[in-house]
Amino acid sequence: MDEIRQALGAPLSRESGESLSDQIVRAVAARIDDRHLRSGARMPSIRQFAKAHGVSAFTVVNSYDRLVAMGYLESRRGAGFFVRERAPLAPQRQPAEASVAGRPLDVVWLIRNLFRQAPPQFSPGSGVLPAEWLDGPAVSNALRAIGRQNSHGLLAYGTPAGFLPLRQQLQRKLAELEIAAEPDQIVTTVGVTQAVDLVARELCQNGDAVFVDDPGWFLMFGSLSMQGLKVIGIPRLADGPDIAQLAALAAQHKPRLCIITSVLHNPSSTSLSAAKAFQVLRLAQEHGFAIVEDDIYCDLHPGAPTQPVTRLAALDQLQQVIYLGGFSKSMSANLRVGFIATSRERAQRLTDRKMLSTLTTSELTERVVYKILSEGVYRKHADRLRARLDAARPKALREIEAAGLHVPTAPPAGLFVWADAGRDTNVLAERAMAEGILLAPGSLFSPSQLPSTFMRLNIAALGEPTVWRFLQRELAR
Amino acid sequence: MDEIRQALGAPLSRESGESLSDQIVRAVAARIDDRHLRSGARMPSIRQFAKAHGVSAFTVVNSYDRLVAMGYLESRRGAGFFVRERAPLAPQRQPAEASVAGRPLDVVWLIRNLFRQAPPQFSPGSGVLPAEWLDGPAVSNALRAIGRQNSHGLLAYGTPAGFLPLRQQLQRKLAELEIAAEPDQIVTTVGVTQAVDLVARELCQNGDAVFVDDPGWFLMFGSLSMQGLKVIGIPRLADGPDIAQLAALAAQHKPRLCIITSVLHNPSSTSLSAAKAFQVLRLAQEHGFAIVEDDIYCDLHPGAPTQPVTRLAALDQLQQVIYLGGFSKSMSANLRVGFIATSRERAQRLTDRKMLSTLTTSELTERVVYKILSEGVYRKHADRLRARLDAARPKALREIEAAGLHVPTAPPAGLFVWADAGRDTNVLAERAMAEGILLAPGSLFSPSQLPSTFMRLNIAALGEPTVWRFLQRELAR
Repeated sequence: MDEIRQALGAPLSRESGESLSDQIVRAVAARIDDRHLRSGARMPSIRQFAKAHGVSAFTVVNSYDRLVAMGYLESRRGAGFFVRERAPLAPQRQPAEASVAGRPLDVVWLIRNLFRQAPPQFSPGSGVLPAEWLDGPAVSNALRAIGRQNSHGLLAYGTPAGFLPLRQQLQRKLAELEIAAEPDQIVTTVGVTQAVDLVARELCQNGDAVFVDDPGWFLMFGSLSMQGLKVIGIPRLADGPDIAQLAALAAQHKPRLCIITSVLHNPSSTSLSAAKAFQVLRLAQEHGFAIVEDDIYCDLHPGAPTQPVTRLAALDQLQQVIYLGGFSKSMSANLRVGFIATSRERAQRLTDRKMLSTLTTSELTERVVYKILSEGVYRKHADRLRARLDAARPKALREIEAAGLHVPTAPPAGLFVWADAGRDTNVLAERAMAEGILLAPGSLFSPSQLPSTFMRLNIAALGEPTVWRFLQRELAR
Repeated sequence: MDEIRQALGAPLSRESGESLSDQIVRAVAARIDDRHLRSGARMPSIRQFAKAHGVSAFTVVNSYDRLVAMGYLESRRGAGFFVRERAPLAPQRQPAEASVAGRPLDVVWLIRNLFRQAPPQFSPGSGVLPAEWLDGPAVSNALRAIGRQNSHGLLAYGTPAGFLPLRQQLQRKLAELEIAAEPDQIVTTVGVTQAVDLVARELCQNGDAVFVDDPGWFLMFGSLSMQGLKVIGIPRLADGPDIAQLAALAAQHKPRLCIITSVLHNPSSTSLSAAKAFQVLRLAQEHGFAIVEDDIYCDLHPGAPTQPVTRLAALDQLQQVIYLGGFSKSMSANLRVGFIATSRERAQRLTDRKMLSTLTTSELTERVVYKILSEGVYRKHADRLRARLDAARPKALREIEAAGLHVPTAPPAGLFVWADAGRDTNVLAERAMAEGILLAPGSLFSPSQLPSTFMRLNIAALGEPTVWRFLQRELAR
C-alpha cells in the first residue's frame, strides 16, 4: 500500500479548493517529471489507487484518462496503466564554458523542478519559504476585502507604472532604507524577474557584457543570456565582490551593467560591507557601468540597528544604481509583484518598455500587496518570519556540519546556507533526485556552470529526517 | 464652480475602495498628463476645491502636497498652486518611414493616454469596453470565493506553464473552436502582449522581418520593433490580407513570422474569409514562415452558426499556426490573463522562455479567470455583451455617418468601427485632445505611421453628446 501512496507523493486534501482529480493529475505528473516514477513503471490499478487514497474509482479513471491525454501515462489493453516514455526535458549537460551566452541552458532543468510545487520537506534545495511559513490569511483577507469593494478598478487596465497607492507605499518603505524615491521613480513589475529583463533590455545591446555575482541567482543568468548578453561572474566573497577581480574584468570587458545582491545574497545569505559598497560604486563611476541592486531578500534582514547593512542605492541615491525589490520571498511568489526604483527619466522609459512587454501589470495583485503593506500586517509577519528563521538557523547549521558538510561563512540572517560537501554536488543532486529529494548543486549558481563542491540549503526546509539520512549516508561514502 | 470641477475630470466616489486623496491625486495627474490642465495653469484654491468637491480642506492640502512631490504642481508663495512645466512625454513626431524598427515610437504617446483611466465617455478612441459593460460582480465574487479557500495555493510560485485547471478549461474552449490542444500545448501569459513578446523572441532574431496587419494593433508594432525586428505591414482588406501583396513581400523579405487577427480585426472589426485563410496558409507553407493568430476578440464574435468564421488554427491544427487568446477585452484587462496554444514542443520552449522573463504568471489571477469560465458565468456575460454591442452598433453607424464620417465596411459584430474622416486624423486627434476627447488616429495603426484620414471608433464609448458636437463642428469646416 505504501508503494501505491508513493505514486502520489503527498496526501490528497479535501480543503485545498482544488478538485481531487486535479490534485491527482498534478501530483502524478509532477512525480513523473521529477523522475520519482520512471518511464515504463506500472501504475496502481484503478481499484488499488482508489482504496489507497480513499477516493472513488470514478475519480481515478478520470485522472488516469487525463494523464493519458497529457502524455504522461499510456493504457495497455488488459495490462493497466504505465508511465509513458517521454523525450528528455532538457538537453544533456554541456561542457563548462566561460559564458553561457547563446547556448542551451542547463539551469532550465533545475528551474522546472524548483518551480513546481514539490513537497517542501523533500526540497532542501528550494529557494522559497514553505507555504506554512508565510501569512496565508493576510492574502485571503485582502482578497475578500477587495472582493467587497467596487469592482470597477478590477476591470480596466491598471496605470502603466503600477498602482499609485502601492508606489506611494513603496516610497515610504524605501525612505526607511534611506533611499529617496518619489512615486514617479517607481515602476511595478511581474516580480524581480521582469525587472531584470526590462532593465537589461533597456540598457544593453546584443553582445554586451553584464557582470553578476558568482555564485549568484541562476535564473538571472538565463534571462540575460537569452538576450544575447555575455554573462560574466564576479567572485563573491563573504563581504561582497572580489574588488580586484571586478576592476580587472571591468577594464577587460567594459560591462554595461553589474548586478549585485547587496543584502542576504543568494545563495550565501551574506551581505555587502560598507567598504565594499563604496569600492563598487567607485568602480562603476570609473568604468561607466550601471549597477542593478537586487534587494529581494530585504525583509528577511533585521535592519541596521541589529546587524550592519549598507545598500548601494542608499549611498548613491539612484544615480548609477537601479534598485529592484519585491514580495515573492517574504509575502507571496504567486502574486508576482516586484518593482524598480530609479531616476525619473529612466522610470519613464522602463514604463514604456514594460507596456511593450506586458502592457500593464495586474492591478489586482498590486492592490493585495498594497493592502497587506499599508495595514501593518506585513511588518508583524516579517518580524515573525525572521524570529522563526533565527530560531531554526543554529540547529540547521549544527545538523549540516554533523552530516559532513562544511559552512565557511555561517550567515547571521536570511534563508540560505551555502555549504561545502567536499565532492561534486551535481552527482549528489542526481542521487538525491532518484530518492525524491531536490538539492540545488553549486554548479547552477555560477555562470561558468563548472562542477562545484558547494550546494545551497534552505533553512526552512530541513526538517525531514529522510533528507538527513540521505546526506549522512552519501557523505560518509 | 464648473471650472473647478473640471480640474478633476470625474466626480469623486466614496465607494471605490480608493481614498479620496488617492482619487484626487490620480485624477489631477491624469488631467495634467492628458493636457486638460496646461502648464502654468492656476489650480483652484484649497478652499474652492474642497467646497466644489465636498471634501475637507485637509484632504485637498494632502493631495496638493503629494502632487507637488510628484512634480505635477508647484506651490508659489502667496499665489497658490500651479501646474508645473514638465518635459514633453514623448519625442516629437518623426517623419514617416517604411519601418519603425530601431527608432523611437510615436505610439508611446497614444498608448500612455489609452491606458490611463480616462473617463470612457470622452474616449471614443479607447480600445476597451467601459467598466460598466463588463461583469464586475463576477470578478468580485470569484475573489471572495478564492479568499475563502485554503490560502496555500496563493503563496507559492504557480506552475510554469500556468494553472492546470485553467489550461484544461482552455482546452475545452478551443475544442469548441475546432482547435485540438492538450493542456501541455497551452502556456498562460501576462495578456496577449507577453504572448507576442515571447513568441517573437523565440522565433526571430535581430533584423528579421515580421509581417503585421496594416492597419493593425499598434502596441504590437512597438513590441516587435523594440526587439530589433523589421515590422512590415500587409494591407488588410475587408476579408483579410491583400494576398498578392503578401506573396510579393514574402518573396522579397523572407519573414520569420506573420501576425494576423483573423476574427474581428482591430481596428476594423472585419474577419478573415475562408478563402483568404486557405491562401494565407499556403503562402506560409511556400515561404516557410510561422503564423501567429491573435484571437483576442474571439468572444465578441457570435460564432459560426450566426456569422461565418474561419480560424487559421482550426484549419492547420497548430502546425504552422501559433494561436493567441486572452480575456482582457471581454472579462478584465486588469487580470492580465492571456495564453498561447501551439505544438507540445514549442509550448515547452515558450514555457522556459516565460520563466526567464517573468518566472511564472500569477496563479491568483488565473484562478479568477478559471472560476468565471468554469462556472458558466462568462458564457452568459459574453452573450449579453454581444447583444448590447449589436444594439448599439446601428445607431453608432448612423451617427458616425451623420457626423460626416464614412465607414467603407460596416462590421456585423465587434467593438470597433474604422471610419474615414476625409482629412488628416492626426490633426483631428490633436484638436480633440485639447478639448479633452481621446481619438485614435489612423496613423497609429500602420507600421508606416503615415498620416491617414481614418480613425478607430469604439461603439461602446460613443454616447457623449460633447464628442458628437466636436466631430460635427470639426468635420463641417
